[in-house]
Amino acid sequence: MIKKGKIQVYTGNGKGKTTAAIGQVLRILAYGGKACVIQFFKPEQTGEIHLLKKSFPKQVKVYSICRNHPFYLSKKTKQDPKKIKIECIEQWQKTKEEAFKKKYDLIIFDEINIAFRDEFIPLKDFFEFLRRKPESQEWILTGRGAPPQIIKDASLVTEMKEVKHPFKKGLKARKGIEY
Amino acid sequence: MIKKGKIQVYTGNGKGKTTAAIGQVLRILAYGGKACVIQFFKPEQTGEIHLLKKSFPKQVKVYSICRNHPFYLSKKTKQDPKKIKIECIEQWQKTKEEAFKKKYDLIIFDEINIAFRDEFIPLKDFFEFLRRKPESQEWILTGRGAPPQIIKDASLVTEMKEVKHPFKKGLKARKGIEY
Repeated sequence: MIKKGKIQVYTGNGKGKTTAAIGQVLRILAYGGKACVIQFFKPEQTGEIHLLKKSFPKQVKVYSICRNHPFYLSKKTKQDPKKIKIECIEQWQKTKEEAFKKKYDLIIFDEINIAFRDEFIPLKDFFEFLRRKPESQEWILTGRGAPPQIIKDASLVTEMKEVKHPFKKGLKARKGIEY
Repeated sequence: MIKKGKIQVYTGNGKGKTTAAIGQVLRILAYGGKACVIQFFKPEQTGEIHLLKKSFPKQVKVYSICRNHPFYLSKKTKQDPKKIKIECIEQWQKTKEEAFKKKYDLIIFDEINIAFRDEFIPLKDFFEFLRRKPESQEWILTGRGAPPQIIKDASLVTEMKEVKHPFKKGLKARKGIEY
């Protein structure tokens, strides 16, 4: 349905990166498109992900991979961080091939910038995958600290800049708003 | 369902302000909440708005008011811009009272910052309305150029900063992505 799919990047330290990507999923569904969300480092699937899967089971597929960031997981479970990293890379390889086969109109790579930054996914590997991207497919990459190589290749980049954030004043994350 | 509703602002010249707000609507719906979207200056309702209304008719209400910005409308139709402005203010007054009665969990004021900037809604009027906000209600204000008084009162402010935008390279808005 999209003739020329582009790469969009939502980066920066402010709120709104993942919610903007989710809003974009809804927009593509509205025109009968199919979307895939690959989430990194999210221990739990948030409410809107559950709702998307429930309301549009034929149009949306969600993969939650590398559910815990090894930094926290190894602290919590005393597992070897290197071993967790290898498992993450395996999950990524499997998931991207599965997503590739399905010919989605839109793929969200949620928090992938963190996976680049912490060297879970080699950029080389990602750019090889990018070369295979169907022309009609739109990609959205989220997460703070997007690497310069990614910004260079993207056609749309928005930096979500935190001007004010209530957590800094001690407010706890609220169900329905922050997750 | 929210104990302490806050004011969120998505401002700046980058893409993602309205889509982030829409993502937030989906999140509140996921927990059984009700949301209202008041859109300013949008001639057409976009795909995701239609989908939200269709999929969640009991939970979502959308008002599209001041559908054309008087600047463009008066050029196109040769109507008196002052008259259009008066009509806009009347629409706003009526809509906000209607929305107030319904006790939504979340209200999106989409592009309201433009309405402030161009003096369609006096800030004084908005702050009076704000004083009546139920404590459990969350408000999201979008649009570039949020006034400093609004930023001061908000608890969460994200500036969506344009780093790169394809329209600058001559790409046209694409169905399913840009609208």
